[in-house]
Amino acid sequence: MTYCVAMRLKQGLVFASDSRTSAGVDDVSVYSKMHRFETSPDRLLVLLSAGNLATTQAVNSQIERDLGNPEITRDLNGFSHLDEVAAYVGEISARVQGIYTEQSEQNGFGASFILGGQIGDLPADIFLVYPAGNYIAASRDKPFLQIGETKYGKPILDRIIEPDTSLERAGRCALVSMDASMRSNLSVGPPIELLLYKAGSLDHGIYHRFDENDDYLQRLSQAWSDGLKELFMKLPRFDWEGD
Amino acid sequence: MTYCVAMRLKQGLVFASDSRTSAGVDDVSVYSKMHRFETSPDRLLVLLSAGNLATTQAVNSQIERDLGNPEITRDLNGFSHLDEVAAYVGEISARVQGIYTEQSEQNGFGASFILGGQIGDLPADIFLVYPAGNYIAASRDKPFLQIGETKYGKPILDRIIEPDTSLERAGRCALVSMDASMRSNLSVGPPIELLLYKAGSLDHGIYHRFDENDDYLQRLSQAWSDGLKELFMKLPRFDWEGD
Repeated sequence: MTYCVAMRLKQGLVFASDSRTSAGVDDVSVYSKMHRFETSPDRLLVLLSAGNLATTQAVNSQIERDLGNPEITRDLNGFSHLDEVAAYVGEISARVQGIYTEQSEQNGFGASFILGGQIGDLPADIFLVYPAGNYIAASRDKPFLQIGETKYGKPILDRIIEPDTSLERAGRCALVSMDASMRSNLSVGPPIELLLYKAGSLDHGIYHRFDENDDYLQRLSQAWSDGLKELFMKLPRFDWEGD
Repeated sequence: MTYCVAMRLKQGLVFASDSRTSAGVDDVSVYSKMHRFETSPDRLLVLLSAGNLATTQAVNSQIERDLGNPEITRDLNGFSHLDEVAAYVGEISARVQGIYTEQSEQNGFGASFILGGQIGDLPADIFLVYPAGNYIAASRDKPFLQIGETKYGKPILDRIIEPDTSLERAGRCALVSMDASMRSNLSVGPPIELLLYKAGSLDHGIYHRFDENDDYLQRLSQAWSDGLKELFMKLPRFDWEGD
Protein backbone atom coordinates (compact mmCIF):
# COMPACT_ATOMS: atom_id res chain seq x y z
CA MET A 1 0.00 0.00 0.00
CA THR A 2 0.90 3.67 -0.09
CA TYR A 3 -0.54 6.98 0.92
CA CYS A 4 -0.49 10.09 -1.27
CA VAL A 5 -2.45 13.32 -0.95
CA ALA A 6 -2.65 16.46 -3.07
CA MET A 7 -4.44 19.75 -2.44
CA ARG A 8 -5.56 22.58 -4.70
CA LEU A 9 -5.62 25.86 -2.79
CA LYS A 10 -5.98 29.48 -3.80
CA GLN A 11 -2.27 29.97 -3.10
CA GLY A 12 -1.20 26.91 -5.06
CA LEU A 13 -0.76 23.14 -4.84
CA VAL A 14 0.50 20.80 -2.13
CA PHE A 15 1.69 17.22 -2.75
CA ALA A 16 2.76 14.63 -0.21
CA SER A 17 3.66 10.96 -0.57
CA ASP A 18 5.15 8.19 1.52
CA SER A 19 7.85 5.83 0.19
CA ARG A 20 7.01 2.34 1.38
CA THR A 21 6.22 -0.46 -1.03
CA SER A 22 5.46 -3.98 0.03
CA ALA A 23 4.92 -7.17 -1.89
CA GLY A 24 4.24 -9.11 1.28
CA VAL A 25 5.60 -8.36 4.75
CA ASP A 26 9.01 -9.87 3.92
CA ASP A 27 9.49 -7.79 0.80
CA VAL A 28 9.35 -4.17 1.90
CA SER A 29 11.24 -1.49 -0.02
CA VAL A 30 11.63 2.25 -0.36
CA TYR A 31 10.51 3.83 -3.65
CA SER A 32 9.62 7.42 -4.33
CA LYS A 33 5.99 7.83 -5.40
CA MET A 34 6.38 11.47 -6.38
CA HIS A 35 7.52 12.10 -9.92
CA ARG A 36 8.19 15.67 -11.03
CA PHE A 37 8.31 16.51 -14.73
CA GLU A 38 9.94 19.85 -15.38
CA THR A 39 10.19 19.35 -19.10
CA SER A 40 9.32 22.76 -20.45
CA PRO A 41 9.48 26.26 -18.92
CA ASP A 42 5.73 26.80 -19.49
CA ARG A 43 4.61 23.92 -17.27
CA LEU A 44 5.12 22.05 -14.02
CA LEU A 45 3.67 18.54 -13.79
CA VAL A 46 3.71 16.24 -10.76
CA LEU A 47 2.56 12.64 -10.70
CA LEU A 48 1.87 10.75 -7.45
CA SER A 49 1.26 7.02 -7.76
CA ALA A 50 -0.24 4.18 -5.73
CA GLY A 51 -0.85 0.53 -6.50
CA ASN A 52 1.13 -2.05 -8.43
CA LEU A 53 4.76 -0.90 -8.56
CA ALA A 54 5.49 -2.51 -11.93
CA THR A 55 2.53 -0.65 -13.43
CA THR A 56 3.42 2.75 -11.92
CA GLN A 57 7.08 2.40 -13.00
CA ALA A 58 6.03 1.37 -16.51
CA VAL A 59 3.73 4.41 -16.75
CA ASN A 60 6.46 6.79 -15.63
CA SER A 61 8.99 5.29 -18.08
CA GLN A 62 6.54 5.41 -20.96
CA ILE A 63 5.92 9.10 -20.26
CA GLU A 64 9.69 9.70 -20.27
CA ARG A 65 10.18 7.66 -23.46
CA ASP A 66 7.43 9.57 -25.26
CA LEU A 67 9.17 12.82 -24.31
CA GLY A 68 12.46 11.69 -25.81
CA ASN A 69 10.92 10.32 -29.01
CA PRO A 70 11.03 12.88 -31.84
CA GLU A 71 8.42 10.93 -33.84
CA ILE A 72 5.77 11.40 -31.12
CA THR A 73 4.08 14.75 -30.63
CA ARG A 74 1.56 13.44 -28.12
CA ASP A 75 3.72 13.86 -25.06
CA LEU A 76 3.72 15.89 -21.82
CA ASN A 77 4.92 18.98 -23.64
CA GLY A 78 2.30 18.70 -26.38
CA PHE A 79 -0.83 19.21 -24.29
CA SER A 80 -2.28 22.61 -23.60
CA HIS A 81 -4.72 21.56 -20.83
CA LEU A 82 -4.03 19.64 -17.66
CA ASP A 83 -7.01 17.35 -18.11
CA GLU A 84 -5.58 16.16 -21.44
CA VAL A 85 -2.50 15.14 -19.51
CA ALA A 86 -4.73 13.25 -17.04
CA ALA A 87 -6.40 11.42 -19.93
CA TYR A 88 -2.96 10.60 -21.41
CA VAL A 89 -1.71 9.17 -18.07
CA GLY A 90 -4.93 7.13 -17.73
CA GLU A 91 -4.55 5.79 -21.24
CA ILE A 92 -0.97 4.62 -20.67
CA SER A 93 -1.89 3.10 -17.31
CA ALA A 94 -4.86 1.16 -18.72
CA ARG A 95 -2.72 -0.06 -21.64
CA VAL A 96 0.10 -1.26 -19.36
CA GLN A 97 -2.35 -3.09 -17.11
CA GLY A 98 -4.05 -4.62 -20.16
CA ILE A 99 -0.83 -6.32 -21.36
CA TYR A 100 -0.41 -8.30 -18.13
CA THR A 101 -4.06 -8.94 -17.42
CA GLU A 102 -4.38 -10.65 -20.82
CA GLN A 103 -1.27 -12.72 -20.33
CA SER A 104 -1.90 -13.99 -16.85
CA GLU A 105 -5.64 -13.75 -16.27
CA GLN A 106 -4.68 -12.67 -12.80
CA ASN A 107 -5.46 -9.28 -11.50
CA GLY A 108 -3.70 -6.95 -9.11
CA PHE A 109 -1.96 -4.79 -11.69
CA GLY A 110 -4.15 -1.78 -10.87
CA ALA A 111 -2.66 1.63 -10.16
CA SER A 112 -4.05 5.04 -9.26
CA PHE A 113 -2.44 8.40 -9.87
CA ILE A 114 -2.80 11.98 -8.80
CA LEU A 115 -1.72 14.37 -11.50
CA GLY A 116 -1.23 17.99 -10.55
CA GLY A 117 0.44 21.05 -11.91
CA GLN A 118 0.03 24.08 -14.07
CA ILE A 119 0.32 24.80 -17.79
CA GLY A 120 0.96 28.39 -18.90
CA ASP A 121 -1.70 30.86 -17.80
CA LEU A 122 -4.30 28.22 -16.94
CA PRO A 123 -5.17 27.63 -13.27
CA ALA A 124 -3.11 25.13 -11.28
CA ASP A 125 -5.18 21.99 -10.74
CA ILE A 126 -5.16 18.37 -9.56
CA PHE A 127 -6.77 15.22 -10.97
CA LEU A 128 -7.21 11.68 -9.68
CA VAL A 129 -6.68 9.03 -12.37
CA TYR A 130 -8.43 5.73 -11.59
CA PRO A 131 -7.05 2.29 -12.52
CA ALA A 132 -9.49 2.15 -15.46
CA GLY A 133 -7.93 5.29 -16.87
CA ASN A 134 -10.82 7.67 -16.23
CA TYR A 135 -10.27 10.67 -13.96
CA ILE A 136 -11.86 13.32 -11.74
CA ALA A 137 -10.93 16.80 -10.52
CA ALA A 138 -10.97 17.84 -6.85
CA SER A 139 -14.23 19.31 -5.55
CA ARG A 140 -14.56 23.01 -4.84
CA ASP A 141 -15.36 22.66 -1.13
CA LYS A 142 -13.03 19.80 -0.23
CA PRO A 143 -10.11 20.62 -2.49
CA PHE A 144 -7.98 17.56 -1.86
CA LEU A 145 -7.50 14.14 -3.45
CA GLN A 146 -6.05 10.99 -1.90
CA ILE A 147 -4.86 7.63 -3.23
CA GLY A 148 -3.74 4.42 -1.49
CA GLU A 149 -4.47 3.88 2.19
CA THR A 150 -6.66 6.98 2.46
CA LYS A 151 -9.01 6.55 5.40
CA TYR A 152 -6.84 7.05 8.49
CA GLY A 153 -5.56 10.37 7.21
CA LYS A 154 -8.88 11.75 5.92
CA PRO A 155 -10.55 13.10 9.11
CA ILE A 156 -7.88 15.77 9.70
CA LEU A 157 -8.04 16.89 6.05
CA ASP A 158 -11.84 17.12 6.32
CA ARG A 159 -11.45 19.47 9.28
CA ILE A 160 -8.56 21.68 8.20
CA ILE A 161 -8.27 21.97 4.42
CA GLU A 162 -10.24 24.74 2.74
CA PRO A 163 -9.51 26.68 -0.44
CA ASP A 164 -8.12 29.56 1.67
CA THR A 165 -5.69 27.47 3.73
CA SER A 166 -2.10 28.70 3.25
CA LEU A 167 0.44 26.50 1.49
CA GLU A 168 2.55 26.02 4.61
CA ARG A 169 -0.42 25.18 6.82
CA ALA A 170 -1.73 22.75 4.21
CA GLY A 171 1.73 21.20 4.01
CA ARG A 172 1.72 20.66 7.78
CA CYS A 173 -1.76 19.17 7.52
CA ALA A 174 -0.52 16.76 4.84
CA LEU A 175 2.29 15.68 7.20
CA VAL A 176 -0.14 15.21 10.11
CA SER A 177 -2.45 13.20 7.84
CA MET A 178 0.57 11.10 6.83
CA ASP A 179 1.52 10.66 10.49
CA ALA A 180 -1.95 9.26 11.31
CA SER A 181 -1.69 6.83 8.36
CA MET A 182 1.78 5.64 9.37
CA ARG A 183 0.70 5.05 12.96
CA SER A 184 -2.36 3.02 12.01
CA ASN A 185 -1.03 1.15 8.97
CA LEU A 186 2.34 -0.55 8.61
CA SER A 187 2.24 -0.37 4.82
CA VAL A 188 2.70 3.42 4.89
CA GLY A 189 6.23 4.53 5.80
CA PRO A 190 8.96 7.17 5.50
CA PRO A 191 10.70 8.96 3.87
CA ILE A 192 7.89 11.45 3.27
CA GLU A 193 8.16 13.74 0.26
CA LEU A 194 6.46 17.12 0.37
CA LEU A 195 6.14 19.64 -2.42
CA LEU A 196 4.60 23.11 -2.11
CA TYR A 197 3.93 24.85 -5.41
CA LYS A 198 2.93 28.51 -5.57
CA ALA A 199 0.27 29.07 -8.24
CA GLY A 200 1.52 31.04 -11.24
CA SER A 201 5.20 30.64 -10.39
CA LEU A 202 5.88 27.79 -12.86
CA ASP A 203 9.02 27.08 -10.84
CA HIS A 204 9.91 23.83 -9.09
CA GLY A 205 8.40 24.90 -5.79
CA ILE A 206 9.60 24.08 -2.29
CA TYR A 207 10.51 20.42 -2.10
CA HIS A 208 11.51 18.57 1.06
CA ARG A 209 12.19 14.90 1.75
CA PHE A 210 11.67 13.97 5.41
CA ASP A 211 13.55 10.90 6.61
CA GLU A 212 12.29 8.90 9.55
CA ASN A 213 14.61 10.78 11.93
CA ASP A 214 14.06 14.20 10.42
CA ASP A 215 14.15 16.75 13.21
CA TYR A 216 11.17 18.79 11.99
CA LEU A 217 9.01 15.72 11.36
CA GLN A 218 9.70 14.46 14.86
CA ARG A 219 8.93 17.83 16.44
CA LEU A 220 5.72 18.11 14.45
CA SER A 221 4.62 14.59 15.31
CA GLN A 222 5.43 15.10 18.99
CA ALA A 223 3.67 18.48 19.20
CA TRP A 224 0.59 17.00 17.54
CA SER A 225 0.55 13.93 19.75
CA ASP A 226 1.08 15.91 22.98
CA GLY A 227 -1.44 18.55 21.91
CA LEU A 228 -4.10 15.91 21.16
CA LYS A 229 -3.64 14.29 24.55
CA GLU A 230 -3.82 17.67 26.28
CA LEU A 231 -6.89 18.69 24.29
CA PHE A 232 -8.47 15.37 25.12
CA MET A 233 -8.03 15.98 28.86
CA LYS A 234 -9.88 19.28 28.56
CA LEU A 235 -13.00 17.95 26.81
CA PRO A 236 -16.34 18.61 28.54
CA ARG A 237 -17.16 16.02 31.17
CA PHE A 238 -20.31 13.90 31.24
CA ASP A 239 -23.16 15.35 33.32
CA TRP A 240 -22.88 12.54 35.83
CA GLU A 241 -19.14 13.04 36.42
CA GLY A 242 -17.64 15.05 39.25
CA ASP A 243 -15.01 17.73 38.58
CA MET B 1 -22.23 0.14 7.13
CA THR B 2 -21.94 0.75 10.84
CA TYR B 3 -19.33 1.63 13.39
CA CYS B 4 -19.01 -0.07 16.78
CA VAL B 5 -16.14 -0.01 19.25
CA ALA B 6 -15.53 -1.73 22.59
CA MET B 7 -12.71 -1.32 25.11
CA ARG B 8 -11.39 -3.48 27.92
CA LEU B 9 -9.81 -1.32 30.63
CA LYS B 10 -8.65 -1.97 34.17
CA GLN B 11 -11.69 -0.11 35.45
CA GLY B 12 -14.15 -1.99 33.24
CA LEU B 13 -15.65 -2.05 29.75
CA VAL B 14 -16.83 0.63 27.33
CA PHE B 15 -19.18 -0.01 24.39
CA ALA B 16 -20.28 2.44 21.71
CA SER B 17 -22.34 1.97 18.57
CA ASP B 18 -24.02 4.08 15.91
CA SER B 19 -27.56 3.40 14.66
CA ARG B 20 -27.54 3.86 10.91
CA THR B 21 -28.32 1.04 8.52
CA SER B 22 -28.43 1.40 4.79
CA ALA B 23 -29.45 -0.92 2.02
CA GLY B 24 -28.57 1.65 -0.61
CA VAL B 25 -28.68 5.42 -0.24
CA ASP B 26 -32.48 5.53 -0.60
CA ASP B 27 -33.08 2.96 2.11
CA VAL B 28 -31.56 4.36 5.26
CA SER B 29 -32.96 3.44 8.67
CA VAL B 30 -32.27 3.65 12.37
CA TYR B 31 -31.61 0.39 14.23
CA SER B 32 -29.85 -0.13 17.51
CA LYS B 33 -26.71 -2.22 17.17
CA MET B 34 -26.18 -2.61 20.90
CA HIS B 35 -27.97 -5.53 22.50
CA ARG B 36 -27.74 -5.97 26.27
CA PHE B 37 -28.58 -9.32 27.81
CA GLU B 38 -29.20 -9.07 31.54
CA THR B 39 -30.58 -12.53 31.87
CA SER B 40 -29.08 -13.70 35.13
CA PRO B 41 -27.73 -11.83 38.19
CA ASP B 42 -24.29 -13.46 37.82
CA ARG B 43 -23.58 -12.04 34.37
CA LEU B 44 -23.77 -9.04 32.07
CA LEU B 45 -23.47 -9.65 28.33
CA VAL B 46 -23.43 -7.04 25.58
CA LEU B 47 -23.47 -7.75 21.86
CA LEU B 48 -22.57 -5.11 19.25
CA SER B 49 -23.24 -6.00 15.64
CA ALA B 50 -22.23 -4.87 12.16
CA GLY B 51 -23.00 -6.20 8.71
CA ASN B 52 -26.12 -7.69 7.17
CA LEU B 53 -29.12 -6.55 9.23
CA ALA B 54 -31.17 -9.69 8.56
CA THR B 55 -28.28 -11.80 9.85
CA THR B 56 -27.65 -9.75 12.98
CA GLN B 57 -31.37 -9.64 13.83
CA ALA B 58 -31.67 -13.41 13.28
CA VAL B 59 -28.69 -14.00 15.58
CA ASN B 60 -30.15 -11.83 18.34
CA SER B 61 -33.57 -13.53 18.07
CA GLN B 62 -32.05 -16.99 18.10
CA ILE B 63 -30.17 -16.12 21.30
CA GLU B 64 -33.42 -14.87 22.86
CA ARG B 65 -35.35 -17.96 21.70
CA ASP B 66 -32.70 -20.31 23.12
CA LEU B 67 -33.02 -18.51 26.46
CA GLY B 68 -36.80 -19.01 26.56
CA ASN B 69 -36.66 -22.65 25.50
CA PRO B 70 -36.71 -24.99 28.53
CA GLU B 71 -35.46 -27.91 26.41
CA ILE B 72 -32.20 -26.14 25.60
CA THR B 73 -29.47 -25.80 28.22
CA ARG B 74 -26.91 -24.41 25.81
CA ASP B 75 -27.93 -20.79 26.17
CA LEU B 76 -26.45 -17.51 27.44
CA ASN B 77 -27.09 -18.52 31.04
CA GLY B 78 -25.51 -21.95 30.62
CA PHE B 79 -21.93 -20.88 29.86
CA SER B 80 -19.36 -20.30 32.56
CA HIS B 81 -16.73 -18.57 30.38
CA LEU B 82 -17.12 -15.57 28.12
CA ASP B 83 -15.21 -17.18 25.26
CA GLU B 84 -17.78 -20.01 25.17
CA VAL B 85 -20.41 -17.35 24.63
CA ALA B 86 -18.30 -15.91 21.78
CA ALA B 87 -18.10 -19.37 20.17
CA TYR B 88 -21.88 -19.78 20.60
CA VAL B 89 -22.59 -16.41 18.92
CA GLY B 90 -20.20 -17.29 16.08
CA GLU B 91 -21.89 -20.67 15.60
CA ILE B 92 -25.37 -19.14 15.32
CA SER B 93 -24.11 -16.41 12.99
CA ALA B 94 -22.38 -18.89 10.65
CA ARG B 95 -25.49 -21.12 10.63
CA VAL B 96 -27.82 -18.22 9.80
CA GLN B 97 -25.56 -17.06 6.97
CA GLY B 98 -25.30 -20.63 5.69
CA ILE B 99 -29.07 -20.94 5.15
CA TYR B 100 -29.22 -17.99 2.77
CA THR B 101 -25.89 -18.54 1.06
CA GLU B 102 -27.02 -22.03 0.03
CA GLN B 103 -30.37 -20.82 -1.23
CA SER B 104 -29.25 -17.88 -3.28
CA GLU B 105 -25.58 -18.48 -4.13
CA GLN B 106 -25.23 -14.77 -3.54
CA ASN B 107 -23.12 -13.42 -0.79
CA GLY B 108 -23.39 -10.34 1.39
CA PHE B 109 -24.99 -12.00 4.41
CA GLY B 110 -21.85 -11.57 6.51
CA ALA B 111 -21.97 -10.08 9.98
CA SER B 112 -19.41 -9.28 12.66
CA PHE B 113 -20.00 -8.99 16.38
CA ILE B 114 -18.29 -7.69 19.45
CA LEU B 115 -19.24 -9.63 22.54
CA GLY B 116 -18.32 -8.17 25.89
CA GLY B 117 -19.26 -8.61 29.51
CA GLN B 118 -18.50 -10.43 32.67
CA ILE B 119 -19.52 -13.77 34.18
CA GLY B 120 -19.28 -14.22 37.95
CA ASP B 121 -15.80 -13.73 39.36
CA LEU B 122 -14.02 -14.01 36.02
CA PRO B 123 -12.45 -10.89 34.50
CA ALA B 124 -14.58 -8.66 32.29
CA ASP B 125 -13.52 -9.14 28.67
CA ILE B 126 -14.34 -8.42 25.02
CA PHE B 127 -14.23 -10.61 21.89
CA LEU B 128 -14.57 -9.92 18.19
CA VAL B 129 -16.60 -12.60 16.36
CA TYR B 130 -15.80 -12.76 12.62
CA PRO B 131 -18.38 -13.60 9.92
CA ALA B 132 -16.96 -17.15 9.72
CA GLY B 133 -17.80 -17.65 13.39
CA ASN B 134 -14.23 -17.67 14.75
CA TYR B 135 -13.23 -15.04 17.27
CA ILE B 136 -10.37 -13.13 18.91
CA ALA B 137 -9.82 -11.29 22.22
CA ALA B 138 -8.50 -7.72 22.47
CA SER B 139 -4.71 -7.34 22.75
CA ARG B 140 -3.09 -6.34 26.01
CA ASP B 141 -1.48 -3.15 24.73
CA LYS B 142 -4.26 -1.91 22.45
CA PRO B 143 -7.27 -3.02 24.44
CA PHE B 144 -10.01 -2.10 21.98
CA LEU B 145 -11.91 -3.85 19.19
CA GLN B 146 -13.81 -2.30 16.30
CA ILE B 147 -16.28 -3.56 13.69
CA GLY B 148 -17.84 -1.94 10.62
CA GLU B 149 -16.37 1.26 9.19
CA THR B 150 -13.35 1.18 11.49
CA LYS B 151 -10.55 3.18 9.86
CA TYR B 152 -11.58 6.82 10.29
CA GLY B 153 -12.06 6.37 14.04
CA LYS B 154 -8.93 4.30 14.71
CA PRO B 155 -6.14 6.94 14.92
CA ILE B 156 -7.60 8.63 18.03
CA LEU B 157 -8.08 5.26 19.76
CA ASP B 158 -4.46 4.35 18.93
CA ARG B 159 -3.31 7.53 20.65
CA ILE B 160 -5.54 7.66 23.72
CA ILE B 161 -6.72 4.23 24.82
CA GLU B 162 -4.50 2.34 27.25
CA PRO B 163 -5.40 -0.21 29.93
CA ASP B 164 -5.22 2.54 32.59
CA THR B 165 -7.56 4.98 30.83
CA SER B 166 -10.57 5.79 33.03
CA LEU B 167 -14.05 4.68 31.97
CA GLU B 168 -15.29 8.22 31.45
CA ARG B 169 -12.26 9.29 29.44
CA ALA B 170 -12.50 6.14 27.33
CA GLY B 171 -16.21 6.86 26.82
CA ARG B 172 -15.38 10.34 25.55
CA CYS B 173 -12.71 8.84 23.28
CA ALA B 174 -15.32 6.44 21.86
CA LEU B 175 -17.59 9.41 21.10
CA VAL B 176 -14.75 11.36 19.45
CA SER B 177 -13.85 8.26 17.40
CA MET B 178 -17.54 8.00 16.40
CA ASP B 179 -17.58 11.71 15.50
CA ALA B 180 -14.62 11.25 13.12
CA SER B 181 -16.37 8.29 11.48
CA MET B 182 -19.65 10.17 11.06
CA ARG B 183 -17.91 13.16 9.48
CA SER B 184 -15.98 11.10 6.97
CA ASN B 185 -18.56 8.41 6.16
CA LEU B 186 -22.27 8.92 5.51
CA SER B 187 -23.12 5.34 6.42
CA VAL B 188 -22.36 5.97 10.10
CA GLY B 189 -25.00 8.05 11.90
CA PRO B 190 -26.77 8.91 15.16
CA PRO B 191 -28.22 8.13 17.63
CA ILE B 192 -25.04 6.96 19.36
CA GLU B 193 -25.37 4.45 22.19
CA LEU B 194 -22.74 4.42 24.92
CA LEU B 195 -22.40 1.97 27.78
CA LEU B 196 -19.83 2.17 30.57
CA TYR B 197 -19.56 -0.94 32.71
CA LYS B 198 -17.55 -0.99 35.94
CA ALA B 199 -15.65 -4.29 36.31
CA GLY B 200 -16.96 -6.50 39.09
CA SER B 201 -20.22 -4.60 39.51
CA LEU B 202 -22.37 -7.04 37.49
CA ASP B 203 -24.93 -4.24 37.25
CA HIS B 204 -26.27 -2.69 34.06
CA GLY B 205 -23.70 0.10 34.03
CA ILE B 206 -24.15 3.66 32.85
CA TYR B 207 -26.07 3.72 29.58
CA HIS B 208 -26.73 6.80 27.47
CA ARG B 209 -28.29 7.26 24.06
CA PHE B 210 -27.15 10.45 22.32
CA ASP B 211 -29.50 11.82 19.67
CA GLU B 212 -28.20 13.97 16.86
CA ASN B 213 -29.11 17.14 18.77
CA ASP B 214 -27.95 15.95 22.16
CA ASP B 215 -26.51 18.90 24.05
CA TYR B 216 -23.49 17.05 25.44
CA LEU B 217 -22.61 15.44 22.10
CA GLN B 218 -22.72 18.81 20.39
CA ARG B 219 -20.56 20.45 23.06
CA LEU B 220 -18.05 17.60 22.87
CA SER B 221 -17.92 17.67 19.09
CA GLN B 222 -17.53 21.46 19.04
CA ALA B 223 -14.83 21.49 21.74
CA TRP B 224 -12.90 18.80 19.86
CA SER B 225 -13.23 20.53 16.51
CA ASP B 226 -12.26 23.97 17.89
CA GLY B 227 -9.42 22.48 19.91
CA LEU B 228 -8.01 20.64 16.89
CA LYS B 229 -8.03 23.79 14.80
CA GLU B 230 -6.36 25.76 17.59
CA LEU B 231 -3.77 23.03 18.14
CA PHE B 232 -3.13 22.96 14.43
CA MET B 233 -2.36 26.69 14.37
CA LYS B 234 0.29 26.20 17.06
CA LEU B 235 2.24 23.43 15.33
CA PRO B 236 5.97 24.10 14.73
CA ARG B 237 6.62 26.04 11.53
CA PHE B 238 8.85 24.89 8.69
CA ASP B 239 12.45 26.13 8.89
CA TRP B 240 11.99 28.28 5.81
CA GLU B 241 8.87 30.03 7.13
CA GLY B 242 8.88 33.42 8.86
CA ASP B 243 7.09 33.92 12.21
